[in-house]
Amino acid sequence: MSMNSFGHVFRVTTWGESHGPALGATVDGCPPGVPLGEADLQLWLDKRKPGQSRYTTQRREADAVEILSGVFEGVTTGTPIQLMIRNTDQRSKDYGEIAEKFRPGHADITYWQKYGVRDYRGGGRSSARETAARVAAGGVARAALAKLVPGLAITGYMVRMGEREIDRARFDLAEVPQNPFWVPDAQAAEDWAAYLDGLRKSGNSVGATIEISARGVPAGLGAPIYAKLDTDLAAAMMSINAVKGVEIGEGMAAAELTGDANADEITLGPDGPEYSSNHAGGILGGISTGQEIVLRFAVKPTSSILTPRRTITKAGAATEIVTKGRHDPCVGIRAVPVGEAMAACVILDHLLLDRAQTGGERGAIG
Amino acid sequence: MSMNSFGHVFRVTTWGESHGPALGATVDGCPPGVPLGEADLQLWLDKRKPGQSRYTTQRREADAVEILSGVFEGVTTGTPIQLMIRNTDQRSKDYGEIAEKFRPGHADITYWQKYGVRDYRGGGRSSARETAARVAAGGVARAALAKLVPGLAITGYMVRMGEREIDRARFDLAEVPQNPFWVPDAQAAEDWAAYLDGLRKSGNSVGATIEISARGVPAGLGAPIYAKLDTDLAAAMMSINAVKGVEIGEGMAAAELTGDANADEITLGPDGPEYSSNHAGGILGGISTGQEIVLRFAVKPTSSILTPRRTITKAGAATEIVTKGRHDPCVGIRAVPVGEAMAACVILDHLLLDRAQTGGERGAIG
Amino acid sequence: MSMNSFGHVFRVTTWGESHGPALGATVDGCPPGVPLGEADLQLWLDKRKPGQSRYTTQRREADAVEILSGVFEGVTTGTPIQLMIRNTDQRSKDYGEIAEKFRPGHADITYWQKYGVRDYRGGGRSSARETAARVAAGGVARAALAKLVPGLAITGYMVRMGEREIDRARFDLAEVPQNPFWVPDAQAAEDWAAYLDGLRKSGNSVGATIEISARGVPAGLGAPIYAKLDTDLAAAMMSINAVKGVEIGEGMAAAELTGDANADEITLGPDGPEYSSNHAGGILGGISTGQEIVLRFAVKPTSSILTPRRTITKAGAATEIVTKGRHDPCVGIRAVPVGEAMAACVILDHLLLDRAQTGGERGAIG
Amino acid sequence: MSMNSFGHVFRVTTWGESHGPALGATVDGCPPGVPLGEADLQLWLDKRKPGQSRYTTQRREADAVEILSGVFEGVTTGTPIQLMIRNTDQRSKDYGEIAEKFRPGHADITYWQKYGVRDYRGGGRSSARETAARVAAGGVARAALAKLVPGLAITGYMVRMGEREIDRARFDLAEVPQNPFWVPDAQAAEDWAAYLDGLRKSGNSVGATIEISARGVPAGLGAPIYAKLDTDLAAAMMSINAVKGVEIGEGMAAAELTGDANADEITLGPDGPEYSSNHAGGILGGISTGQEIVLRFAVKPTSSILTPRRTITKAGAATEIVTKGRHDPCVGIRAVPVGEAMAACVILDHLLLDRAQTGGERGAIG
Repeated sequence: MSMNSFGHVFRVTTWGESHGPALGATVDGCPPGVPLGEADLQLWLDKRKPGQSRYTTQRREADAVEILSGVFEGVTTGTPIQLMIRNTDQRSKDYGEIAEKFRPGHADITYWQKYGVRDYRGGGRSSARETAARVAAGGVARAALAKLVPGLAITGYMVRMGEREIDRARFDLAEVPQNPFWVPDAQAAEDWAAYLDGLRKSGNSVGATIEISARGVPAGLGAPIYAKLDTDLAAAMMSINAVKGVEIGEGMAAAELTGDANADEITLGPDGPEYSSNHAGGILGGISTGQEIVLRFAVKPTSSILTPRRTITKAGAATEIVTKGRHDPCVGIRAVPVGEAMAACVILDHLLLDRAQTGGERGAIG
Repeated sequence: MSMNSFGHVFRVTTWGESHGPALGATVDGCPPGVPLGEADLQLWLDKRKPGQSRYTTQRREADAVEILSGVFEGVTTGTPIQLMIRNTDQRSKDYGEIAEKFRPGHADITYWQKYGVRDYRGGGRSSARETAARVAAGGVARAALAKLVPGLAITGYMVRMGEREIDRARFDLAEVPQNPFWVPDAQAAEDWAAYLDGLRKSGNSVGATIEISARGVPAGLGAPIYAKLDTDLAAAMMSINAVKGVEIGEGMAAAELTGDANADEITLGPDGPEYSSNHAGGILGGISTGQEIVLRFAVKPTSSILTPRRTITKAGAATEIVTKGRHDPCVGIRAVPVGEAMAACVILDHLLLDRAQTGGERGAIG
Repeated sequence: MSMNSFGHVFRVTTWGESHGPALGATVDGCPPGVPLGEADLQLWLDKRKPGQSRYTTQRREADAVEILSGVFEGVTTGTPIQLMIRNTDQRSKDYGEIAEKFRPGHADITYWQKYGVRDYRGGGRSSARETAARVAAGGVARAALAKLVPGLAITGYMVRMGEREIDRARFDLAEVPQNPFWVPDAQAAEDWAAYLDGLRKSGNSVGATIEISARGVPAGLGAPIYAKLDTDLAAAMMSINAVKGVEIGEGMAAAELTGDANADEITLGPDGPEYSSNHAGGILGGISTGQEIVLRFAVKPTSSILTPRRTITKAGAATEIVTKGRHDPCVGIRAVPVGEAMAACVILDHLLLDRAQTGGERGAIG
Repeated sequence: MSMNSFGHVFRVTTWGESHGPALGATVDGCPPGVPLGEADLQLWLDKRKPGQSRYTTQRREADAVEILSGVFEGVTTGTPIQLMIRNTDQRSKDYGEIAEKFRPGHADITYWQKYGVRDYRGGGRSSARETAARVAAGGVARAALAKLVPGLAITGYMVRMGEREIDRARFDLAEVPQNPFWVPDAQAAEDWAAYLDGLRKSGNSVGATIEISARGVPAGLGAPIYAKLDTDLAAAMMSINAVKGVEIGEGMAAAELTGDANADEITLGPDGPEYSSNHAGGILGGISTGQEIVLRFAVKPTSSILTPRRTITKAGAATEIVTKGRHDPCVGIRAVPVGEAMAACVILDHLLLDRAQTGGERGAIG
């Protein structure tokens, strides 16, 4: 029941604060014999790395990952993999104000109340930097999945930024890497750029919705009740900081549907069951159907804004605060690779958990 | 990593199928000395019990809970509490059709693919009956919370049924127990009755959104990263069958907000910090603020409808199916006490987990 | 981290007190498709059942196990298996004395101190009756092992009773079921009968050492550090009540050996590596070698004896106590099937855990 | 169920190989506000450090621990504590022989069979170096215990080396730090020095028995069944490499006793219950009595000896091997601080687990 771990068999524990010497992830339960090098992980870290466009924090971090254990002669050994990322850009600054004042919408006050002590430098453990460790661990999961389930593809992209939504009629995955928003809609990308520039210049921030798609996930992963595949995916996404909602398939909109509108009818195709639609998001009764797994999560706008906000000090005095410094006008942008990484970890974990219990055998149809 | 358990310290494992001899919950980690009797649990089970109005399945189950262990002379002993509910209404019927055909939207096909065997009687483990065990376990959690945190109140209610939403201007918790929908809006109750009658008569079903409110939760429960209070609440709700989305505070709508619109400003009140609003839903950085905790989850419409649906048989033959028998036109109604029960379990669990690590001490403000 | 569960994937949670309505085990993570019926479990329960000879407690319990869930049409479904054993022989008696006095060597005083309440009837949770649930769960593990690893054989037997030891020169497994002590030495059986009669008549009790042998365990089960196969076996045995020591292979005697005396030399046989000896007890670096796994555990003499012992009452008054009633002069006898059951659970659990991580593949030799 | 973690609430995960860049421990669940610095941990690491006498391996390691997270301004923050120890003395040598041959008594062959790959440099994960991480984690546990239970003292010492045993009549804890064997018997220290010199010069090795004493442990820690304090202590010790047996109180010798000889009679002293003896080793029914906790574990002789041993190569060829290089003639010496560290982790963990469930309240006596 460790508080900083997730996963059943493929188990990840992250550690580290924003402005300490380093942060990282301890990855336990990885299958042996998986080809793995630092470059395989750096690929994903670079995607999350800040300062790549004017739309993300200007903090400059190399985010260079070091593999300290668990890999020998280019393959995983089955022992714990320690991934370390040094913090390099710890600008020496006066933390006086945020050390004394609680920033509204931040974990400052709850950390203080719970622990009676907090590392206020850059938000300590509650910094978005913690997600770098998740992305590194996700890279390990992706490497294992590439060996165990060739063809499995996990892709994340933004579908909403504040008031702006994508037009599904223009949906094109090829566009995702072509713009700073990871948005599958070229026109939205242009439109959002102007929209976010406006917010950024006014020192404001905005929320976003990220969608994660997993194609090629075999049928049969998950469990009926508490270790449901959707339960673990929901937990994984909700554990990302600033996330306030998670949905699978139709998600919250399922509440508005009637039974006849929601049914995914079944036919038998050449490679097994096929479905007339995917309202379920690829999961039935907690277990994957073999369809595309589709989930979405909402990221709130960062609370670090230039508009003065009322708050109190540790001493209890009423005051105001303006969060200066380097921040993300839309932290949802950098949440895209984080969501992908968490999905990769959960799917690999359930692949291992399933072969534990069933040996990977499947009930025959037809 | 048991697949049928949830909770860190207060740990619940449910067992049993819809049409087996019995089902129940094994509750481990309950504090000792908590006054507990079967009547304390029956109270909540009766709230979930089917057949109480024409809007829920007509299956007649006494849902009488028996405490088989862990209670002595009227108080919990700190040893595992076994809660058993016998299945009484197992109508002898011909299961031939559902034994051979996979019902669209049901777990029939995924169970079959994963396990190569399934108890098709009444859906077996995927039946809504499993939630009776959760409600019983939630009753234990409520009893422990009543002793440890007097005044803590957990209340669930429906805020949407299909196209119909409540009017927050008419919001009145006192109305919740006054109508068959647990809706806090008298006028909506009338309106929804007519709406659901229509759907029921046409053999259709509809989805719903349930909101859970927890008042009086102390500040400091939860953890920063994977054992976040919101992570565990999200997992608990997503683990309920038919749930497709979960949100905390602003939830999915947070994606549409800007930072200045989303900030909950802080002032110091007589009993500690106070907030100008509750966009966060009572949780910051995974830790409770002491505000009301507000979450919502969406329940899809039951797939058991009278409209014929295309599907396949185990042999792979194309066919059609109509799910006859006793079903819930809006299973969301009975999900209300289930959501309350899950919230009670998670909050108690985090209360225990917090005192494990911090001893319940709090950082002083002012 | 539930306090009443053990196992990683194959996870058993026991519940119930000696004199409550029933006790049992919730078995999670069992592979699906395993042929299982109550008779398969009763077989082992009957072996543990009291009152079969004058050397075990005269309490008469049918120990009839009921499978309440997780089995359908004669095979496991992969969902939780609930095993219930009703308590039938709850002699109505005056518990006044043991309710007020703490029996030396019993858990009475520590339960009271920890929980502030205890079910004193028959020792409540600390009764040897709890082991009936372990034996039932072990029967499930044996059934799964029979399907997954045909030929794997787990056998327990006594090697010491008080001052008496077996003569390894007369070691004969065929003798084990032929005597009431499960001792693999016909002459020892006779000798021990007289010895134990003496102790029994004087109202005394005696300790015992049980050895568990597991043949046919594949190489590669276990893990290098904390989930070592020997770690989990040691924990499983130490969790049995009255056990005070556990050893693998040479065990405590390994401290007396030199390196050259302790080495198991390796050769290659027709079916893989062979060893010149088995000082290691079939486990190297926490992982099975494929040799016979050999472990022993020591059971202390029951504290329930007729000799008056000084103790105190809940009120703190000095007093004496004599434990009357039905007790085991050598509780180690009934610990034999319990040790076998625990070993079966641990070995199956590691078989599942291994196929989770490695898929069951093995590094080739030769 | 991570394979490289232990503990319920205070949870330690170790990582790293003997000849990789570093190894360490991720410590989760530590209470906040505990004064902690690297010097507090170095103290214990220096005790375990090799090369301090001619009786331990001459490998020269600084074993300097770095705290990378979870500590701020000299106190723990309640977030994960990452402890890293760099490997400095990785003598560049030809690993050819041990890369190809399996050393008898080593994990070489089982790692290879299980994972199909192994880091053979210095034994990789199976090296005694892994225990450095345990000692560092134990230092964190000791710091937390010092704050929560002042006066609690955990001391380890050797009681047997091969054929030599201490004389309990000469038992003197003050002697423990005065000799290279941590033996509480000055005369034994002299005698053992000559004995071990003989073995060392002949390139042989020898086993040992270590006893761990914990004084000042409050009554009420532990749980009745699987999370018994003795179960977790046994598992912790058995998880140390080369350990083959563990015993609590009378341990294996309890099998030789009768009930009247084994009873610890109870009286009421000024500070609570007192016992006439401590056959139980301070634990009854899995829960601490408040007496001294006494356990012992046996460490086998290292298999790295100069006597040629028959073995096979990966290719399956018969061969011989002599393990040259720097080794411990009695690895049990360095196991003393390791056993202390594991005991500290388990006792702190159960202290936290107990206050989770009971809040630390105790049933009153007298």
